[in-house]
Amino acid sequence: MKPVKVGICGLGTVGGGTFGVLTTNAQNITRRAGRDIIVEQIATRQPNPDYDTSAYKLTDDVFAVAQNPEIDIIVELIGGYDVAKKLVLTAIENGKHVVTANKALIAEHGAEIFAAAEAKGVSVMYEAAIAGGIPIVKALREGLAANRINWLAGIINGTGNFILTEMRDKGRDFADVLQEAQQLGYAEADPTFDVEGIDAAHKLTILASIAYGIPLQFSRCYTEGISTITTEDVQYAEELGYRIKHLGISCQSERGIDLRVHPTMVPASRPIANVDGVLNAVMVNGNAVGDTMYVGAGAGAGPTASAVVADIIDLARSMDADNSARVNHLAFNTIEDEQVLPIEDIETAYYLRIQALDKAGVLASVASLLSERGISIEAIIQREPAPGEELAQIILLTHRVQEKVMNDAMTAIEGLNSVVGQLTRIRVEHL
Amino acid sequence: MKPVKVGICGLGTVGGGTFGVLTTNAQNITRRAGRDIIVEQIATRQPNPDYDTSAYKLTDDVFAVAQNPEIDIIVELIGGYDVAKKLVLTAIENGKHVVTANKALIAEHGAEIFAAAEAKGVSVMYEAAIAGGIPIVKALREGLAANRINWLAGIINGTGNFILTEMRDKGRDFADVLQEAQQLGYAEADPTFDVEGIDAAHKLTILASIAYGIPLQFSRCYTEGISTITTEDVQYAEELGYRIKHLGISCQSERGIDLRVHPTMVPASRPIANVDGVLNAVMVNGNAVGDTMYVGAGAGAGPTASAVVADIIDLARSMDADNSARVNHLAFNTIEDEQVLPIEDIETAYYLRIQALDKAGVLASVASLLSERGISIEAIIQREPAPGEELAQIILLTHRVQEKVMNDAMTAIEGLNSVVGQLTRIRVEHL
Repeated sequence: MKPVKVGICGLGTVGGGTFGVLTTNAQNITRRAGRDIIVEQIATRQPNPDYDTSAYKLTDDVFAVAQNPEIDIIVELIGGYDVAKKLVLTAIENGKHVVTANKALIAEHGAEIFAAAEAKGVSVMYEAAIAGGIPIVKALREGLAANRINWLAGIINGTGNFILTEMRDKGRDFADVLQEAQQLGYAEADPTFDVEGIDAAHKLTILASIAYGIPLQFSRCYTEGISTITTEDVQYAEELGYRIKHLGISCQSERGIDLRVHPTMVPASRPIANVDGVLNAVMVNGNAVGDTMYVGAGAGAGPTASAVVADIIDLARSMDADNSARVNHLAFNTIEDEQVLPIEDIETAYYLRIQALDKAGVLASVASLLSERGISIEAIIQREPAPGEELAQIILLTHRVQEKVMNDAMTAIEGLNSVVGQLTRIRVEHL
Repeated sequence: MKPVKVGICGLGTVGGGTFGVLTTNAQNITRRAGRDIIVEQIATRQPNPDYDTSAYKLTDDVFAVAQNPEIDIIVELIGGYDVAKKLVLTAIENGKHVVTANKALIAEHGAEIFAAAEAKGVSVMYEAAIAGGIPIVKALREGLAANRINWLAGIINGTGNFILTEMRDKGRDFADVLQEAQQLGYAEADPTFDVEGIDAAHKLTILASIAYGIPLQFSRCYTEGISTITTEDVQYAEELGYRIKHLGISCQSERGIDLRVHPTMVPASRPIANVDGVLNAVMVNGNAVGDTMYVGAGAGAGPTASAVVADIIDLARSMDADNSARVNHLAFNTIEDEQVLPIEDIETAYYLRIQALDKAGVLASVASLLSERGISIEAIIQREPAPGEELAQIILLTHRVQEKVMNDAMTAIEGLNSVVGQLTRIRVEHL
């Protein structure tokens, strides 16, 4: 078969990695794809010093690549929204398949992009957009296709997992570890996307769509970051036999779809609680297969390029065939709009930390405020004020309850005279 | 598109499960496949009381199904070799695609079956043959296709993992747990296939082929079971910070291919060491992606059916397209024969347990016999004889060394006057 010609747009970490994998593993890739895969052109503002691209056609104009009649597949690795979207739509308009690692673009503009691709009979592939080298998109779209997916939950931001792992292992506080993560290149200068859960929400939005066949709806994803997690809470979690992970969680029930990113306490003995550092992991529960889990590096040149090139090979294997042989962009032929539950309507268990002046009296009042609302308590830790401090700590684990009921209970508890300040609340899942 | 018609051969655990998933999840499956998937005929000696098949065409003749002109895909779930092979070849001869969960058949007769299928332009799919519901075949053939695979290692027999987990958690001995596993239905009346590693070797043979693009060569797989593992060794492993798992391991190096199933000590903190009970897990290391791991149920009606039906959906999505759009049976277009290393030529670390009459003198002699052969010691435990016993125990962990050198050292140690009986040796991998 004739070679497949690829145009790489962007030669940063992932673009360079993609160039590196396509050239280093060329022989292996040809054996797998059944044809050569050739880098025809590269668009970049500046060469990447880690790779020798001197023998290749370089341009600084990504649109020249998207319009190059020699090229079959455009690889969009420039990131961001506006130019990336225009680039992808131009490539589609020119009848080219697209491979992208851009989670923000797919989560926020996927519907428009996929519609354009379907109209043109081309594919837009995005395995690299979620959990780096872990083939989780393929697992959900194809490997688990027999199942009704009940829920999925994942550590899908390596920066956040690195920070939480360091906080637990070394007792360091959030700001301190974040600074190190920035020095190590794990976190951006502006860490908001990572630590406030926006990046994870982009990925979760895509995962939920391909799990349930629902529209991409990033704006309905509830997002809560890890910047308010304290070393105290990390230690109390440990004492209770739990660990705090920043999870993206989505479930499908008769009540609707949960779509939420927030710090979550999970039992320490569960495999996902033991996925540490910059690793990613996604658990998927299907009605036939039960629990499955997928673990690997969620970022970095090699892992992300592994996913980008897997998509290129998939296209190389199928691009000459009838369009119908390809899997639908969102895994389902028909997308059904199911209600995404507001966060007030989800149901989960809770960890509460209460600071109080008068511990004995408070506990009785707190217990009664919870009990009145039908919230039962699973575990309690009480701590006397440390020497020189005035506040006692009451830590509670509750059974599952609807969030709006918990909100109401928390307001009532915060209204008690001897309770000081706001409660700390972390959701608990027994994955 | 017109419906895909499936013939299910065998209505035992997996056949029943497949029928159940296809009917229970029919709506979901149609949304994913873009067409209906219909059970056209079922071959079974007796109805399965767990499923209502009264509305379906039943026969006791599997060959009638293989020849039924209405049927597009034959699902072979009768197991075993002779009839299954004839059934699969008959189906292929009649131009039908085949989905099978039969690891023994693929590992031992895959080359012949795939050649017949390729000649006829049909596909034989076998995701369910390895690690139940975990989509590991798809991950290796497609998801990680960009990589040169360096090594893979897996817990690919749930029975063995259940036994080793119980031995560790409860200090029970092998025979005792095996009996329970048989009562629970986890182990066959004749447990040889599971506990002696033959079942795992079948699966490893297939995994290595699709990882490296080498021929299926079950006969070259080294196989060692877990029936000789004692509670003593389980405890010493724990003391040294390790756990014993029955692993299938394959690596690709310049020296050749490792293909081996044996009890293996792995550091207790590694994720795969924490995959317990009947769960399966496969780790795969690729030169781009690094380490990845896939975890889930390795057997049972639902998980295995999940994989069978995923294969059916894959076929339904692509069967009307040009044959070239499908992935090669063994993932590579060209199969290259690389040398499988004899077990004497592999290199690994070792755990040795030595029983001796006179501990002090022996240790010096043992250390010198190892040192003469360039084998360095990583850790030592010495145990005085227990009250009423005469033998002291010396436990050693060594650094990596070629197995033939270790064999020679073991023979020399066993020749020492004060050493009693044979050494216990367990291979150690720092996965």
